[in-house]
Amino acid sequence: MKIEVVAIGDELLNGLTVNSNAAFISREIHFLGWHVDRHTTLPDHPETLKKGLQEAMERSSCVITTGGLGPTCDDRTREIAANLFHSSMHFDEKVAEDLKARYGENLTSLQDQATVPAKAEVLLNSVGTAPGFIFQSHGKVLILLPGVPIEMQAMFLEKVVPFLKRHFALEQNLKTERLYFCLMNENQIDPFLRSLKEKYRTIECGIYPSFGTLTLLLTSQDESELKLAKRDIAAKFPQNIFSSPNGKIEEALHEWFLGNKKTLSCAESCTGGMIAEKITANAGASEYFLGSLVAYSNALKSNVLSVSESTLKNKGAVSAETVREMLEGLFKITEADFGIAVSGIAGPGGGTAQKPVGTIFAAIGEREKTPDVGMFQLKGTRQTIMLMTTFHLIGALWRKVVHQTPAFL
Amino acid sequence: MKIEVVAIGDELLNGLTVNSNAAFISREIHFLGWHVDRHTTLPDHPETLKKGLQEAMERSSCVITTGGLGPTCDDRTREIAANLFHSSMHFDEKVAEDLKARYGENLTSLQDQATVPAKAEVLLNSVGTAPGFIFQSHGKVLILLPGVPIEMQAMFLEKVVPFLKRHFALEQNLKTERLYFCLMNENQIDPFLRSLKEKYRTIECGIYPSFGTLTLLLTSQDESELKLAKRDIAAKFPQNIFSSPNGKIEEALHEWFLGNKKTLSCAESCTGGMIAEKITANAGASEYFLGSLVAYSNALKSNVLSVSESTLKNKGAVSAETVREMLEGLFKITEADFGIAVSGIAGPGGGTAQKPVGTIFAAIGEREKTPDVGMFQLKGTRQTIMLMTTFHLIGALWRKVVHQTPAFL
Repeated sequence: MKIEVVAIGDELLNGLTVNSNAAFISREIHFLGWHVDRHTTLPDHPETLKKGLQEAMERSSCVITTGGLGPTCDDRTREIAANLFHSSMHFDEKVAEDLKARYGENLTSLQDQATVPAKAEVLLNSVGTAPGFIFQSHGKVLILLPGVPIEMQAMFLEKVVPFLKRHFALEQNLKTERLYFCLMNENQIDPFLRSLKEKYRTIECGIYPSFGTLTLLLTSQDESELKLAKRDIAAKFPQNIFSSPNGKIEEALHEWFLGNKKTLSCAESCTGGMIAEKITANAGASEYFLGSLVAYSNALKSNVLSVSESTLKNKGAVSAETVREMLEGLFKITEADFGIAVSGIAGPGGGTAQKPVGTIFAAIGEREKTPDVGMFQLKGTRQTIMLMTTFHLIGALWRKVVHQTPAFL
Repeated sequence: MKIEVVAIGDELLNGLTVNSNAAFISREIHFLGWHVDRHTTLPDHPETLKKGLQEAMERSSCVITTGGLGPTCDDRTREIAANLFHSSMHFDEKVAEDLKARYGENLTSLQDQATVPAKAEVLLNSVGTAPGFIFQSHGKVLILLPGVPIEMQAMFLEKVVPFLKRHFALEQNLKTERLYFCLMNENQIDPFLRSLKEKYRTIECGIYPSFGTLTLLLTSQDESELKLAKRDIAAKFPQNIFSSPNGKIEEALHEWFLGNKKTLSCAESCTGGMIAEKITANAGASEYFLGSLVAYSNALKSNVLSVSESTLKNKGAVSAETVREMLEGLFKITEADFGIAVSGIAGPGGGTAQKPVGTIFAAIGEREKTPDVGMFQLKGTRQTIMLMTTFHLIGALWRKVVHQTPAFL
């Protein structure tokens, strides 16, 4: 099976949008034990698009496209694919019903979006308005997905993965295991993985770092070796390995707080609300998350969190004393069982010789107990410093509550 | 001239790395007045790579590759390109001298990196070790660039842009205009664009929706038609069109607050800190952004924002009265000139018949003035509802401060 991912849209070819969809699809296909052979990006222009799609279908047995399914005049993927598969277009009541149920009767694009190729299997869009499609003919598969990443991702995971599993038997019978780690980087796990590959000869491993989580993919035809390797890794990194539906450390934290009926609140400065945003992204967070005081200005730090003027003046807003007082203030104004307080310099301005950009102070603690207060130093752009701080602190709190480990080692 | 950008590397095809290089090159080429016709991603495997490059050279008059130029065993782009252009490899003293000057005599990859195709023009790498190359033959151009983004970007801007300008005359002399809109969707602008294309026959337009911003790209050979079209569009949507470096409405808001020396704070419930996060993503936000009270629990709404118990009990946390009191409370505890207060049901749980998931109440106001209080109804997942709410309110505040328009129409 040859798989090709085709992105469609002038916004990609003029550099307005980075094609993150191809990476998402490729990674998920890799996780299923297959691999993608080629990525192609084609313009909206109908003839060029048609020719490009035709070539892709000749080259590859499975072509997955993203983009060009919307209701506007430059969205032509549907008609072109219908044309390639000699399919007429017709009005699909199921699509229309679904859109009416989610958007009401007056959706202006309803007529357009419910007009679909008769020969294709329709994939309802659970997030937006444009349905996806699967065409099949003579052993070739063409799958059309929307271009908006969250719509595409939901449709891919909900509908395309089960289809691919059904349609293409796992050729080599490869088994895979996905393991997630927090507070860890590639260099920390790499030497161990090399020794593991010598011990278990059938195991292949891939490391995928992202903010907050290091994902390890183990692949083998030998299920027992896979189990043994997984056991060895879990034994080596017991305080870093976590399980969660989507490999996010904030999901693991969410589960712990729900399961243990404890509550949490935050006092954020340099993370600017990002910790709260990651936590509240999980449905049901209101069961344990009371809120976050995003005290960006010093006035808010003293007025709301009762950080003393003398601490701010003598130690500075970015200091161990300030985050300690922010946490104390937080416990006074909220009833939370646990709290995170953070203040740092995200940059690009604001750094000094003593406290360069990337200097972060944080306090993590439980009500009535001595908090853990720590400092760490990060490198990167404003955005990466904010992200690394956010995930580092969520990971540190998770490790503290689950493994009774001090937040800062 | 047909231009194709080819990215090379297994890390792209297994989804470990997002191909941001193609977007960078495409955007720069677009800014030069040309356009990229296709993106392709090929694997490291030598035969597949050779075949893929050959096809690209047949299809396109100018092929620009990224990746595969390093010294490791999976970097094969140099030899394969040399082979395609019937070139031998030789040791290049200029490359060797440059590497010695920057890395010292003991650079282990020196011998390898200084061995280059004899027929190619060498592009010295000002950031890393791998030089780039330009091959030319029979009117075809093949440009090889390194895969590391900062190396590629420097080489592209310093060496490739001047080469392209020299080599290719501006064939069609296409002009482009990029316009950004907030508080608007594709369906609202599409009918107007159809009429515009009938009025100005040379104009091509592309619509690119994303959360918070609708981007419109106009292209034409006729500069005066382009100007007229832009004027017509601006006149049609005067309160939606905005300018910003990256097309983000929070950047436009940022500029206004900095320029007008006013301050802002927020009281967020259902957005969970996301408004603060978008605002603080901009360097320098601390000049005007005082903070956000993320009052997720009712206790925080009353303790910190002084929302009355009776309002919460009789009207509910998601009500016009609650957001009005949240805003009043916010103005009491911060000195901000402007404020946003929001409370809603992001779902998937928590909806009722009266207030289904997606019901959002918000108050936007200026200190000492009557606030605008509004309700709107959104559809989507938890994440899309939070994103739509965040950008809707940032857009509504921008429109209010810039155009003195009521926040909720």
